[in-house]
Amino acid sequence: MSSAPLDLFRPSSTLDSDSLSKKITLLGTINSVKAILQLEKSHFNFSNEIPITTVHQIAHNDVYYWGTTLLEQDLDTNPAAKFNLIYPASEAHIAKYQKHPVHMVVETPEAYEKVVKPYIETQKGDRLQWVRNILYHGVEKERVVFKNDDYILLPDMKWDGTTIESLYLVCIVFRDDISSIRDLTEDDIPYLKRIKESILVEVPKKYGIARDQLRLYVHYQPSFYHFHIHVVNASYGGLGQTQAAGKAILLGEVIETLRLLGKKGYKGKSIEYGLSEGHDLWSGMKEYAN
Amino acid sequence: MSSAPLDLFRPSSTLDSDSLSKKITLLGTINSVKAILQLEKSHFNFSNEIPITTVHQIAHNDVYYWGTTLLEQDLDTNPAAKFNLIYPASEAHIAKYQKHPVHMVVETPEAYEKVVKPYIETQKGDRLQWVRNILYHGVEKERVVFKNDDYILLPDMKWDGTTIESLYLVCIVFRDDISSIRDLTEDDIPYLKRIKESILVEVPKKYGIARDQLRLYVHYQPSFYHFHIHVVNASYGGLGQTQAAGKAILLGEVIETLRLLGKKGYKGKSIEYGLSEGHDLWSGMKEYAN
Repeated sequence: MSSAPLDLFRPSSTLDSDSLSKKITLLGTINSVKAILQLEKSHFNFSNEIPITTVHQIAHNDVYYWGTTLLEQDLDTNPAAKFNLIYPASEAHIAKYQKHPVHMVVETPEAYEKVVKPYIETQKGDRLQWVRNILYHGVEKERVVFKNDDYILLPDMKWDGTTIESLYLVCIVFRDDISSIRDLTEDDIPYLKRIKESILVEVPKKYGIARDQLRLYVHYQPSFYHFHIHVVNASYGGLGQTQAAGKAILLGEVIETLRLLGKKGYKGKSIEYGLSEGHDLWSGMKEYAN
Repeated sequence: MSSAPLDLFRPSSTLDSDSLSKKITLLGTINSVKAILQLEKSHFNFSNEIPITTVHQIAHNDVYYWGTTLLEQDLDTNPAAKFNLIYPASEAHIAKYQKHPVHMVVETPEAYEKVVKPYIETQKGDRLQWVRNILYHGVEKERVVFKNDDYILLPDMKWDGTTIESLYLVCIVFRDDISSIRDLTEDDIPYLKRIKESILVEVPKKYGIARDQLRLYVHYQPSFYHFHIHVVNASYGGLGQTQAAGKAILLGEVIETLRLLGKKGYKGKSIEYGLSEGHDLWSGMKEYAN
């Protein structure tokens, strides 16, 4: 295989830098051609011997000591970091990895009708062909975890499929008349409760996790406009903003809110959420910023 | 100062291991006395030269290359990790650092009256003295960011006070009749809107961040039972579960929900949330698990 010419990478700017996950994404060039280099520190991996080589104590107060250390590292069993290189990198790659500020917007029923609903219409059709492929044409059928008349359940693409600590499944419903929670009303409560109960029964059967250790939620805005439910290990905190208030809404909370909203359903509610400047809706929703 | 005897630390078990933040918390002994050692990888810190020393490419597909690397490290400018040592560690320390599974519970109005309200009563009085010290006795007054007749705003203890990327403030209100959102009704809507608007005006003045880039939310269950609002940079994803649906509720959403709940307010609503096995409420709330 051809080798990543990492030694020729010349950084020009930082696309993203995340101090929580210790990950940095750099834009640069290799032989004057654009490239993106992502570096992420590795997690600790040792059994008995702690791989500390040198200690520098910064301070000490009562029973508390803190400072910095150097660590053993070797490429096979204990690398310091992993890298991802995209070379050559297209403008689309760069746009994808560029971090955009998030703005809080309040989507009133009017904003939904005027800005969001027309946008959603442009996201149907061919854009959802991959969903129909899964639902009706058996694509990815070897990945399906469970299927009944209401929905198909499969592992999220971000999950490795085995680590229960970070379990992440997606439930895609067969009904195609629900683009988002905006299309739900109190009439859908029995339907949603049936799906919720089924997920809480089927996932524990397959993965041996307790039903009350599953966190079920939907996104608004979702990343695609065919109703789906995220199913994750309730103890897992590694999903960042995709799980945050202002993006995720518990399925149980959706059902409770539908009780209050009555016949009009979510179409009658103002919904506040975080919207990235990189999202297609930002230009239209700007005037509804918090 | 006395030196952390890190070289004498003998690990016996792992209390917590977080692959997202690359942090590991070990229980062990130093000279047969219990100690807790926490190690966390450091974030990347370099200006021009990328500190890669050795590269091992794992695979290559089209424009994508990935693999592992070794990194330069030195104690002063580029340590590999930071450490925190607690020695000797008490049973309370160990309980605090031990990771507990999270369960989703549905707190019905009945569960609130029967289990949660009596618990909250035990959390008042002396337990809230530190809040009264801030509000009325000028403790931490050099940290106060803004103060008016409704509230005091100060940096959260988890924030370094300068990095806008991870800005995190806490707004503590003067009213002492709101232990949690359960005590809010539609009568409080003007009050909450006034506070929300004031925060969105004052924080940008002080920190130069746009008002729509602030995410305002409350916790349920909160960590202390005197009403307070979390104010964070909307773009920051590093707060894990403390920001997740099932723990955090946007202040704007609280106000919207109060409109729907009317006179009874949040006392009339079922609230679903994640509860750690380590929380005092878990034994009582167990029967309301999802």
